[in-house]
Amino acid sequence: MPKTDPQKTPPLFPCIMAGGSGERFWPLSRKTTPKHLLKLFSDRTLLEEAARRLEGLAPADRTFVLTNVAQQESTRRALPFLPPEQIVAEPAKRDTAPAAALAIALAYRHDPGAVVALLPADHVIGEPETFRRNLRDCARAAAVTNAIVTLAIGPTWPCTAFGYLELAEEMPPGVEGTPLRLVRRFVEKPDEATAKAYVTSGHYAWNAGMFIWRADVFLAEAERSQPELASFIRDFPPGDFGPYLADRFPSLPKISVDYAIMEKARKVISARAEFPWDDVGSWTAVRGHIPADAAGNCIRGTAFTLDAKNNIVFSTGRPIALCGVKDLVVVDAGDALLVCHRDHDQDVKKLLSTLPDSLK
Amino acid sequence: MPKTDPQKTPPLFPCIMAGGSGERFWPLSRKTTPKHLLKLFSDRTLLEEAARRLEGLAPADRTFVLTNVAQQESTRRALPFLPPEQIVAEPAKRDTAPAAALAIALAYRHDPGAVVALLPADHVIGEPETFRRNLRDCARAAAVTNAIVTLAIGPTWPCTAFGYLELAEEMPPGVEGTPLRLVRRFVEKPDEATAKAYVTSGHYAWNAGMFIWRADVFLAEAERSQPELASFIRDFPPGDFGPYLADRFPSLPKISVDYAIMEKARKVISARAEFPWDDVGSWTAVRGHIPADAAGNCIRGTAFTLDAKNNIVFSTGRPIALCGVKDLVVVDAGDALLVCHRDHDQDVKKLLSTLPDSLK
Repeated sequence: MPKTDPQKTPPLFPCIMAGGSGERFWPLSRKTTPKHLLKLFSDRTLLEEAARRLEGLAPADRTFVLTNVAQQESTRRALPFLPPEQIVAEPAKRDTAPAAALAIALAYRHDPGAVVALLPADHVIGEPETFRRNLRDCARAAAVTNAIVTLAIGPTWPCTAFGYLELAEEMPPGVEGTPLRLVRRFVEKPDEATAKAYVTSGHYAWNAGMFIWRADVFLAEAERSQPELASFIRDFPPGDFGPYLADRFPSLPKISVDYAIMEKARKVISARAEFPWDDVGSWTAVRGHIPADAAGNCIRGTAFTLDAKNNIVFSTGRPIALCGVKDLVVVDAGDALLVCHRDHDQDVKKLLSTLPDSLK
Repeated sequence: MPKTDPQKTPPLFPCIMAGGSGERFWPLSRKTTPKHLLKLFSDRTLLEEAARRLEGLAPADRTFVLTNVAQQESTRRALPFLPPEQIVAEPAKRDTAPAAALAIALAYRHDPGAVVALLPADHVIGEPETFRRNLRDCARAAAVTNAIVTLAIGPTWPCTAFGYLELAEEMPPGVEGTPLRLVRRFVEKPDEATAKAYVTSGHYAWNAGMFIWRADVFLAEAERSQPELASFIRDFPPGDFGPYLADRFPSLPKISVDYAIMEKARKVISARAEFPWDDVGSWTAVRGHIPADAAGNCIRGTAFTLDAKNNIVFSTGRPIALCGVKDLVVVDAGDALLVCHRDHDQDVKKLLSTLPDSLK
C-alpha cells in the first residue's frame, strides 16, 4: 500500500449513490423520478443538495454520481454544475457492493491511495459545514489508519428500519477532529425491544450507509471476501471505460456492500456524525422538514383546511382542501393522487405493486 | 275559476327549478356548474335525468326549466332536447316563491286552468314510470279539488335536514289513483328527537318540494297572502316576456314558496310518493347510488385501494390511491381536490367560504 503523509489531506473522491427508486414516495417518485430527484423540501432536488453539500471538499472532476441507465439523463440535468461524464450509469441493476466497487475503481485508477466517500443521494442533512468537517476528518482517518470508516448517527429513537453499529471503546487519538470508535459489528435491523436496548446502551449507532475508504484498503478487503469485485477494480481501464463497464458490471454478484465488505472487514472505525441527519424514509418522515401550521398540518403547495389536524399535504399546482380529517398523507402528483393514513405509509410500496406499470 | 272536466287529464306544465348552487358538492359543483349539472351517478346530469323523467307527461313546449342568467347557456346545452326558449333565466336571485310565480305565469297565460308541477332539478328518483303515474294522479287531483297538492315522501329515518308535512286522515276518494291525505301543516326542520317522533307516528312525511297546483288556484292563494306575486302573474304579457321579466322580477319579495304560499294555503293535500327518492344533499348521500366494493368503498372513476374502508371516491381522470384510510370522501375535480371525513361533509359549505373566488 502506498505511503500517505498523515499531515496531508488525501485526495478525496466523493461518490453519490443515486440509483434508488424511492417507491415509498409514490406518487411523486416514479421509476424515472426516484426520491433523490424530488424537490421535497426546497427548490432543489435532494440529489442537488447532496452534491452541493460537497462543494469545497473535492473538485468536480473527482466527484462521481452513480445512477442507472434510465435515470442518467435526468440525473445529468439535475446536476448541471458537474461534468456530464462524472454521472456514471450502472449498465445493470446489481446491489450496492458492485456500485461501491465501481466508485473505488474510478478513484483507484487515478490514485490507489485516494480516499472514496460513498454517500447516499436522498438523505436530508443539516449544517453542511459540520458535515464537511466530519467528512474531512473521516477522510483523514481513512488515509492514515488503513481502516474502513463509517459515519455513525447517534440514535434518537429506537428505529427498527435501520441497521445499527455496535461501537467499542474510544480509539487513541491518531487523528485530530471527530472522536473515533472501533466498530465491533454491524447489526441488521433489530426488533423494537432490541432497538430500545441499543438506544439506551450508548454503545450503538445508526448505520446511515456513509462509508469512507482508501481505494487500496477496499481492494484489499475485496480480495479476501469478494474476489470478483477485486478483479473488476484491478482490471478497470484508464480512459474510456464504457465497453468494460457494459461487459463486466452485469455479471458482478448481486450483494450489498454492508454484507459483502463491511460486515467482514478487518478494521472498521466510526466517526460520530455531528450534523442533523434524517434518511426521510417515508412520507410521514417529511414532518420534521416542513413547518407545521397551528393544527400540525405540514403543507407544501396550496391547501385549505377546516378542522384538519396533523396532516401532511403535497400539492403540485392544484389546491387541496381538507375538511375534518387528521393524520393523513395527501399527495397530488399531477397524474395520480395518494391519500394514506400516516400509520400506513410503509404500505405505499405494497400499494404500488398493485398499480399498472404506467403509474409506477 | 274555470270549470275543469274531472274525467279529462288537465294540461300539465312541468317546471323544473334549476337555480341552485349545490355548494355541498364542491369541488365538483361550482357557481357555474351547480349540482344539477353534474353527472354524479350516470353519464347524464341530474337535470337531464329530471327532464327525461317527464317525457310523455307533457310536450316539450309545455315543459319549462327555470335557471339564472349565469347558468342559462350551460343549462340549454345540458338539455338539447328542449327548445331553448323553454329554459328561462330569472334575471335576479330571489327565492322560490318568485320562481314559482314565474312558473305559474308561464302556464297561466296559456290556460288559467293549467296544472303546474314545480319540481326540483337535483334529486335522484327511481322508477320513473311510478313517478309519472304519481305525478299524473297529483295533476288530476289538483285539477278537480282546487287544492294545492304536494308529493309526500314516506320518511325512512329521522332526518333533521328536511321540512315535514303533518298529515290528516285519508280523504274521500274524489280521484282515482294514489291515496290522498289532507296536509294539516308544514313543519320546519325538526330536532332529532322530534324527527324520531314524527317518523314513528306515521302521520308525518318529508316535504320534498314537489308541488302541483292549478295556475288559478296558486293565483288565488297569492292574492290573499302575496299580492305582489299575484299582480306579477296577472300582468305577465303574452309573447316576448323578456323586458317584463327584467323589469318586474327583481323587485319581487325574496321569500320561499313554502313560507309565502304553502304554509298559508287554505287547502293542501298530499299524495304519497311511491317511487324511490333521495335529495342527495351532501357527499355522503351518494353512498346509496354508487355500488360499493367488498370493503364498502364507493368509487366513481379510477381508484386503487389497500386496507381502505367505507370511502367515497370521485376521480375525474387521474387515478386516486387510498391506503389505510376509512370513512373519507375524496373528490378530484381536476383543478381542485377535496379530502373530507364523512362526518364533516356538511362543513364543505363552510370550507368553501374560506376559498378564493376562483375556486368557488
